[in-house]
Amino acid sequence: MFVYLDNSATTKPYREVVEEMVKYMESLYGNPSSLHRMGIDAEKAMKEARKSVAASLGAKEEEIYFTSGGTEADNMAIFGAVQARKRRGDKIITSRIEHPAVAESCRKLEESGFRVEYIPVDSEGVIDLEALESALDERTILITVMHVNNEIGSIQPVERIAELKTKAEKKFGSEILFHIDAVQSYGKMSVLAGTADLLTVSGHKIHGPKGVGALYVRKGLTIHPYLIGGGQERGLRSGTENVPAIAGFGVAAELCRRNMDRRIEIMKKAKAYLSEGIRSEIPDIRFNSTEQGSPSILNVSFLGVRGEVLLHALEQSEIYVSTGSACSSRKRGQSSVLKAMGLSDKEIEGAIRFSFSEFNTEDEMDYVLEKLKTEVKKLRKLGSFR
Amino acid sequence: MFVYLDNSATTKPYREVVEEMVKYMESLYGNPSSLHRMGIDAEKAMKEARKSVAASLGAKEEEIYFTSGGTEADNMAIFGAVQARKRRGDKIITSRIEHPAVAESCRKLEESGFRVEYIPVDSEGVIDLEALESALDERTILITVMHVNNEIGSIQPVERIAELKTKAEKKFGSEILFHIDAVQSYGKMSVLAGTADLLTVSGHKIHGPKGVGALYVRKGLTIHPYLIGGGQERGLRSGTENVPAIAGFGVAAELCRRNMDRRIEIMKKAKAYLSEGIRSEIPDIRFNSTEQGSPSILNVSFLGVRGEVLLHALEQSEIYVSTGSACSSRKRGQSSVLKAMGLSDKEIEGAIRFSFSEFNTEDEMDYVLEKLKTEVKKLRKLGSFR
Repeated sequence: MFVYLDNSATTKPYREVVEEMVKYMESLYGNPSSLHRMGIDAEKAMKEARKSVAASLGAKEEEIYFTSGGTEADNMAIFGAVQARKRRGDKIITSRIEHPAVAESCRKLEESGFRVEYIPVDSEGVIDLEALESALDERTILITVMHVNNEIGSIQPVERIAELKTKAEKKFGSEILFHIDAVQSYGKMSVLAGTADLLTVSGHKIHGPKGVGALYVRKGLTIHPYLIGGGQERGLRSGTENVPAIAGFGVAAELCRRNMDRRIEIMKKAKAYLSEGIRSEIPDIRFNSTEQGSPSILNVSFLGVRGEVLLHALEQSEIYVSTGSACSSRKRGQSSVLKAMGLSDKEIEGAIRFSFSEFNTEDEMDYVLEKLKTEVKKLRKLGSFR
Repeated sequence: MFVYLDNSATTKPYREVVEEMVKYMESLYGNPSSLHRMGIDAEKAMKEARKSVAASLGAKEEEIYFTSGGTEADNMAIFGAVQARKRRGDKIITSRIEHPAVAESCRKLEESGFRVEYIPVDSEGVIDLEALESALDERTILITVMHVNNEIGSIQPVERIAELKTKAEKKFGSEILFHIDAVQSYGKMSVLAGTADLLTVSGHKIHGPKGVGALYVRKGLTIHPYLIGGGQERGLRSGTENVPAIAGFGVAAELCRRNMDRRIEIMKKAKAYLSEGIRSEIPDIRFNSTEQGSPSILNVSFLGVRGEVLLHALEQSEIYVSTGSACSSRKRGQSSVLKAMGLSDKEIEGAIRFSFSEFNTEDEMDYVLEKLKTEVKKLRKLGSFR
């Protein structure tokens, strides 16, 4: 049985998404900047997609800017916001468990003289709001915090952060921008762009195409562009628009929005079922995800087993999981997220991330449980943990 | 008859490209960073594509870095090179007829204190080599010049520029990087990456997918990354790899390389045939392209006619052309390329760009000539030029 449980790394595009993309490659392949009908048709496709993505975020069409993906949208939000506001302040607030697209951007800003405060998280991977509140000062120009953590699925209290931001703005008489990286929450729970000033989403995490994402920029807000050139996307993101991918993204956003409740229900069930099975059948484990976390992610440490070895053992049975985030799995070194949560080395080494989609079934979870039980037992006997 | 003559704006993807992309969306949709087989399969696809693109440029596999397109590759080359070398110098040399992805990058560098020299071109749109040579000084760190101009198809003497660069490096005992934007020459003439230190190509101009391009970075050369995050593309370009588009790009590069001579022959014939027809049948014109220029571009000014009006008239007969580059066609104002070549306002206003592909036929050119003759005559009578 083929079981794909690496949906936080990437998802299988919907059939309708692929069909839409093929349409825009085979017949409607014009450049939206062209003045003739083929250009106009391409532009229409972009408008439709923009409408769908906006609707999925409760935003306005003109607040959506298409990018090449989540990383570009994160870079664009952070550097674009900071460049536009560097005269007003020099402090950025973020968390210790951000995706590298945010964390590395912050580090780069530190190198060029900005002050960055990395707020700690608790043992469940939730940001310390008190620490965040006391970090806010009159020189703060940006808060950037993810909505759902990509490794463990913890949900950050973004509404509370937005409140603290507004409070601080009043207190200091300044403007603070709030950027949310919503790549892992988008399509898996309600994401309201209005909570943030800037918000990142990605296509390939919601059964849309790879190579496309969007940045929500609150109406009236000015940030600097990141990719510069021909002035596409109303001057904020240059480069020939990736029309097929954008059209496909629109279709995925629409499908996700329409079937949201049903989709969440399926993921929740899969997570609960697998979670319960692991709890009752496998000893010496640590759940790194909570029930209250994202329905799409279950991170579990199997003590005495090396995650990577277990991953490859499961792969033999066509079960695809991850040890952490895909972005960092090829790199040596421990998960900085689990470390920030205070896990021991042994707990970190044994961690596996199961990430769900609406296509997962109870039968699949039974199969995974059976294989997990066998493999964990086997590996523990072999003493794979050295 | 449907005649697409806007191939410099974008091209129709090859059937084989679309098929390859569908394959990587429907079944091999893994994230290359995932440790399991689905990740490995995706990585294999990337390796194949890298090989094809490298072969098409006479480069090594490890010299190819995939991006979201030409604009990103240009930005990455220019800012990445300058960031890595800003301590050694502050001067950048470019031409007056660059694509906005290069021109705007240079302008941004000027704003942050770099000296940029914009070298003039002659009446055929070819860069003044003497001016370039005398612009080179001991503080020069980068030359960025396009290979083929996107509006008129003039070919820049990149080999000569490379010689002048080497000469200057010896003279000043410094290192100067040479970046070539080869977006418009790639697939339409021989492009050898070895002429440059950095070289930009794009997928959708060679019947590949939109949303993908590549930057050639000469082996051993260090530049700074532009998109930062998860460290994909050996740390130089972060963001989940757009596997389907990259795989499709590889297929397009391979097909282009294999059929290069035949493809060039077809474009040359179409250009010569249309060119001759216009010359003999339509009075009061100015050829803004030369026979020696790129086989893919013919730019002609029809005096007494407004290009945009002629474009829409031709569109009625399903003939798709452009007034200038797609990137700037939606913006008000005149073509800076034609202006730099010294054309009069009247000549600039009447300019039309025909851009060819291997799919164009003699029959199509006969049809275009017939319609052109009628429409130009009609518009001149109506006195569309005010």
